[in-house]
Amino acid sequence: MAGSSFGTLFRITTWGESHGKGIGVVVDGCPAGLSLNEEDIQLFLDRRKPGQNKYTTQRQEADAVEILSGVFEGRTTGTPISLMVFNKDQRSKDYSDIASYYRPGHADYGFDQKYGFRDYRGGGRSSGRETIGRVAAGAIASKLLGELGIQVTAYTKSIGMVECDPAHFDRSRILNSKLYMPDEEAEERALLFLDECIEKQTSSGGMVECLVEHMKPGIGEPVFDKLDACLGKALFSIGAVKAVEIGDGLAVSRSMGHENNDQFTELSPAPADASQTESGTRRAQKAANHAGGILGGISDGSNILIRAAFKPTPSISRAQTALFQDGTCHEIRIKGRHDPIIVPRAVVVVEAMTAITILDLLLWNMTATLDKLHRIYD
Amino acid sequence: MAGSSFGTLFRITTWGESHGKGIGVVVDGCPAGLSLNEEDIQLFLDRRKPGQNKYTTQRQEADAVEILSGVFEGRTTGTPISLMVFNKDQRSKDYSDIASYYRPGHADYGFDQKYGFRDYRGGGRSSGRETIGRVAAGAIASKLLGELGIQVTAYTKSIGMVECDPAHFDRSRILNSKLYMPDEEAEERALLFLDECIEKQTSSGGMVECLVEHMKPGIGEPVFDKLDACLGKALFSIGAVKAVEIGDGLAVSRSMGHENNDQFTELSPAPADASQTESGTRRAQKAANHAGGILGGISDGSNILIRAAFKPTPSISRAQTALFQDGTCHEIRIKGRHDPIIVPRAVVVVEAMTAITILDLLLWNMTATLDKLHRIYD
Amino acid sequence: MAGSSFGTLFRITTWGESHGKGIGVVVDGCPAGLSLNEEDIQLFLDRRKPGQNKYTTQRQEADAVEILSGVFEGRTTGTPISLMVFNKDQRSKDYSDIASYYRPGHADYGFDQKYGFRDYRGGGRSSGRETIGRVAAGAIASKLLGELGIQVTAYTKSIGMVECDPAHFDRSRILNSKLYMPDEEAEERALLFLDECIEKQTSSGGMVECLVEHMKPGIGEPVFDKLDACLGKALFSIGAVKAVEIGDGLAVSRSMGHENNDQFTELSPAPADASQTESGTRRAQKAANHAGGILGGISDGSNILIRAAFKPTPSISRAQTALFQDGTCHEIRIKGRHDPIIVPRAVVVVEAMTAITILDLLLWNMTATLDKLHRIYD
Amino acid sequence: MAGSSFGTLFRITTWGESHGKGIGVVVDGCPAGLSLNEEDIQLFLDRRKPGQNKYTTQRQEADAVEILSGVFEGRTTGTPISLMVFNKDQRSKDYSDIASYYRPGHADYGFDQKYGFRDYRGGGRSSGRETIGRVAAGAIASKLLGELGIQVTAYTKSIGMVECDPAHFDRSRILNSKLYMPDEEAEERALLFLDECIEKQTSSGGMVECLVEHMKPGIGEPVFDKLDACLGKALFSIGAVKAVEIGDGLAVSRSMGHENNDQFTELSPAPADASQTESGTRRAQKAANHAGGILGGISDGSNILIRAAFKPTPSISRAQTALFQDGTCHEIRIKGRHDPIIVPRAVVVVEAMTAITILDLLLWNMTATLDKLHRIYD
Repeated sequence: MAGSSFGTLFRITTWGESHGKGIGVVVDGCPAGLSLNEEDIQLFLDRRKPGQNKYTTQRQEADAVEILSGVFEGRTTGTPISLMVFNKDQRSKDYSDIASYYRPGHADYGFDQKYGFRDYRGGGRSSGRETIGRVAAGAIASKLLGELGIQVTAYTKSIGMVECDPAHFDRSRILNSKLYMPDEEAEERALLFLDECIEKQTSSGGMVECLVEHMKPGIGEPVFDKLDACLGKALFSIGAVKAVEIGDGLAVSRSMGHENNDQFTELSPAPADASQTESGTRRAQKAANHAGGILGGISDGSNILIRAAFKPTPSISRAQTALFQDGTCHEIRIKGRHDPIIVPRAVVVVEAMTAITILDLLLWNMTATLDKLHRIYD
Repeated sequence: MAGSSFGTLFRITTWGESHGKGIGVVVDGCPAGLSLNEEDIQLFLDRRKPGQNKYTTQRQEADAVEILSGVFEGRTTGTPISLMVFNKDQRSKDYSDIASYYRPGHADYGFDQKYGFRDYRGGGRSSGRETIGRVAAGAIASKLLGELGIQVTAYTKSIGMVECDPAHFDRSRILNSKLYMPDEEAEERALLFLDECIEKQTSSGGMVECLVEHMKPGIGEPVFDKLDACLGKALFSIGAVKAVEIGDGLAVSRSMGHENNDQFTELSPAPADASQTESGTRRAQKAANHAGGILGGISDGSNILIRAAFKPTPSISRAQTALFQDGTCHEIRIKGRHDPIIVPRAVVVVEAMTAITILDLLLWNMTATLDKLHRIYD
Repeated sequence: MAGSSFGTLFRITTWGESHGKGIGVVVDGCPAGLSLNEEDIQLFLDRRKPGQNKYTTQRQEADAVEILSGVFEGRTTGTPISLMVFNKDQRSKDYSDIASYYRPGHADYGFDQKYGFRDYRGGGRSSGRETIGRVAAGAIASKLLGELGIQVTAYTKSIGMVECDPAHFDRSRILNSKLYMPDEEAEERALLFLDECIEKQTSSGGMVECLVEHMKPGIGEPVFDKLDACLGKALFSIGAVKAVEIGDGLAVSRSMGHENNDQFTELSPAPADASQTESGTRRAQKAANHAGGILGGISDGSNILIRAAFKPTPSISRAQTALFQDGTCHEIRIKGRHDPIIVPRAVVVVEAMTAITILDLLLWNMTATLDKLHRIYD
Repeated sequence: MAGSSFGTLFRITTWGESHGKGIGVVVDGCPAGLSLNEEDIQLFLDRRKPGQNKYTTQRQEADAVEILSGVFEGRTTGTPISLMVFNKDQRSKDYSDIASYYRPGHADYGFDQKYGFRDYRGGGRSSGRETIGRVAAGAIASKLLGELGIQVTAYTKSIGMVECDPAHFDRSRILNSKLYMPDEEAEERALLFLDECIEKQTSSGGMVECLVEHMKPGIGEPVFDKLDACLGKALFSIGAVKAVEIGDGLAVSRSMGHENNDQFTELSPAPADASQTESGTRRAQKAANHAGGILGGISDGSNILIRAAFKPTPSISRAQTALFQDGTCHEIRIKGRHDPIIVPRAVVVVEAMTAITILDLLLWNMTATLDKLHRIYD
């Protein structure tokens, strides 16, 4: 409850700083019996690993994960899963001069106001390395959702002005492209734009989109733990996110009711008993999905579509005006190894936080009806 | 923890349905010693009351609040404050036919999938009347923040395509205009547009903006209970919100680092001891506020600026295609008394949720340093 | 989270003071589909109603409960159930002199130290009337457990030195005796002892025992939310409880391992498939139940047996030494209408808190295995 | 929220199994600015270390703690403190035969019923080694309480029938005696009794008492998070605890009101302004402390006195009847390295859980009044 935990039933607690001994997460409440090994988690961590190409920080970290508890004979035991990554390439000296001033666009000033002092090495706890714990936990959540047939997929939606065209969506590109963009042509333009950013000693913002397919209906708790409210918190808790959209997002403010309401469509004949949902109706079909799969805070079984807007990396080489502890301002230039764009490495973080949120609410929903209690306890 | 509570230390729990006996909220964790009476709360509730003009539902409700506990001799006692409003004008018969089908754009289908059946009268728990509890609790949070000098102000930012011009911002208009818009000229155009919506049997979306002035720095808990993450959840938990923005919001995705970073500016000489903040520096000044007052999830003492995008009211008179329990679809027309636009009545809901969130995190921050413990316990 | 809520998934929030407008509870997280009406709850409240005989306070309260939300067409909807009882017989004048001093054995001094002042009328929030909310919520939890075959039964175990003899246990007496004692002979002696207490202007302590039959195995969350830890908190949260025991309780400290370990016994042949528990074994049988049905914080399927020790009512007519606000001490005599013994009216409170705790952990356990997820979502 | 976390504002999350890679804890919400190093924590861990003498398991573990995060330049930063101890002497083969049956007095059967299988090596998560995380976190809480002048001291109260005599209480013995007993003569008798237990291949129960001195008044949240309710949960969450007492504990059930009420006594003249407590009165004095420092769930500034009854170690060498997976029962003898008495090593665990609980509620109480908000934010 002190800020470093997320989720109610599937609950993660992250710890660690950029330049401390390591980064970790404790996952409590993972159901027992899930097959799990370190490779399952490493595949996710490799997607956010630094040093992959010139568009990411040149810090060299293997980010090799170790499972310290909660797995026995290849399966989760129901007890806390402790995961850890050691920091290897901590060049703290890069940051020694940051101790004396507050950088524009960073959390430096807020941390000092809150705690009276701060770990100034590489952002300390506010570093992007904190997301390692989220991604490791998200790998577990994704695997568990996969067992139920639910698939969570995030990708780069836009970088600066360059936006993917849904018509060119190529799912196979996502994990095999430098920028995790599903549109080849857009990625080519984005790479040129990023080269320009590097040359100009600045950075770029962008959008990450996340798609959840084969979602179960009925997930989300009215009224404060709505599915969209929990997803909103999950994505806003990622550093640098300044806006979150569900479905049509901002555009709904300029829409009209008859355009925005997703009309239902006739169901095809029921193929078999298996197609019957709990309440006796077949899964609803809609003519459109402006709602992004969530109505009244509850999933309707359509695909969920959410987006997060990331601000440009605040660490840029260009001269900036910093505030010093004595209250004066001076020009500074930030050294160190920084990404010209946060978005590609944030893709897997968005996917992880989405998976964690959905799994947590899916567990929660198991207690929604007396009928479900009978199914478990009779 | 079961979805109807919000906040950690200042914690509200709402209850009630549109057509039940009433609507209420229990506010637990309100500090003792705040002067409070029913009039303080009624002023807030009157801003969301139905039937104010032709742009809101014609349901007639006084929504007179009663304080049932937690206040003694005009001051809060530190124990739970129970607030209640009785429903008066419940015409349940308006809704009898809704029982048999799922309306487009509504939570009907999701509720049935989740709970096996639903209270179909006027949306039940998913009705906008649920926000009465939030607004009542928000009145208390706002009053308490006011005691510390923090002011929370929400208003209508846009309706459909009609947007307020910041240059025409007139604070005095907000509470004295039909649509709670601070720009007179924009409101006139918005009213014309809403007349058109009514005529066309449809509804409109819009945006609400909220400004927090004289904010304390250091508020917000890294990493999952960031101030923006908690605000994001707070606003997304309001029905019909499909996007939330902090500061520049979505625009940051198209911005560059040197544009988006708020540069610090030299402080004016310290006027007196009172201007010293805790860590020995004077309050930081910035040349811009693209960040909307939050960096790394912690307030920096600038104004906080957030926005929520509301979808058009899903209840429209126009013919629509509903799903029936037997799996077939048919044309329906929704009767009942509905708003052509949610936004004006949602303004005070956004203000309430913002105030509750900020107060909760302000309380939380009181335990951030050993120095603060000494200040309370020595 | 601010002290007036209990439980995680089945979560209750109580409010109200002894001499305010009323007392209530919001029950959030009750599964949908449970048949429920006001009579179900009234039966429980009548067991703690004052004025039943000369051994309870002479305050006259019908304590008639009203269901304000969460039930539709006779069944719970899954949304918050708000329950309320109005205070009728509030003779606040009885308490006017209490404002100026702190009574021995009461919470007066602590409340003033905590909140700076207090609602001095009849104990305010620390009054026994606060338990009305618990009992009302407990009626719901008990009914739901009953649907699963689990039965919770509390009774008076001892009053002063007078203890029930297990050999004389007569279940049918419990609800039909003045003191809720299952042993007729013990009750006769207890009544004589209480007459003596009244005559001597003093009060008596006693024990309440609670038995849970047909318990499911596997309930309780290691390591901090053990079943016994949650029950311990539940019972200690009842005012006047100074000790809690599980199974053999205190006696285990004087026991030896070979005496205290409950040996397993051979199972009788499995009668049918229905007798198979989840993990493929039949329900374990034990030769004894020193453990009171809980090992390692998890139920083993045996009966659960817990006890709570209640202190004597602190309000006695005899002269006592009170602390006044000016720091001096003076002799006072407490007027008002008080019970010479808390225990009989506390029986149903213990039963209620036990039922709430067990139901909450039963819901929680539904998410313990991947297999259970498949049973709900496949 | 999934069982391995404790506390609201000062929140600990433990992880690890007896025979996994290690044991750890994440402490979130520790105020910034506390001086802290590994030696502070090691001193506490050494008190529960195995292999200290023949009355504890012969497993050899240095239990050397490592601080992995949350401390910078010798002070806590306000971010999560991750602490870890590696397991060294894991002889898993000792336990291979345990996989096939359920031991009497152990959690084996419950874990299997809950999770479908278990980590059978040395009890897995239900091992006493889990308490390493609690003790490490408790060292931090104790140090922080010490900064405010609050002292927490636990000791062995009784072993079997041998009880310490309060008249022989010698505080200096506690940390310098084999059994952490403050009464030399009692310890001598206890050692003889334990030799007898070892010879008879059995084990003994006992009591741990904990004393909190210089406690602040006003701590504890009515009504469910009473100080005694939270302490009760804290102690019952320790494996093997079957009863918890506050103050006079069980004896209150046989007491009468005029005996049990602690009368107030005249205050000595106020020495200085510093002796004024918040509400304008000097600290109350009482003629007795039957209440153990807690009334109505709130501390009254007297010493807090609590006790926990521990059952005998369930692992004994003597022949016992175990349940096998096929439903049959057979005689088994438990091998491995076990303590004949849990109590001496549990002393520091009780002290740790008490310190954690009190600190958590002390932080919580900082938000109890508007006056306190002004003290922090003006």
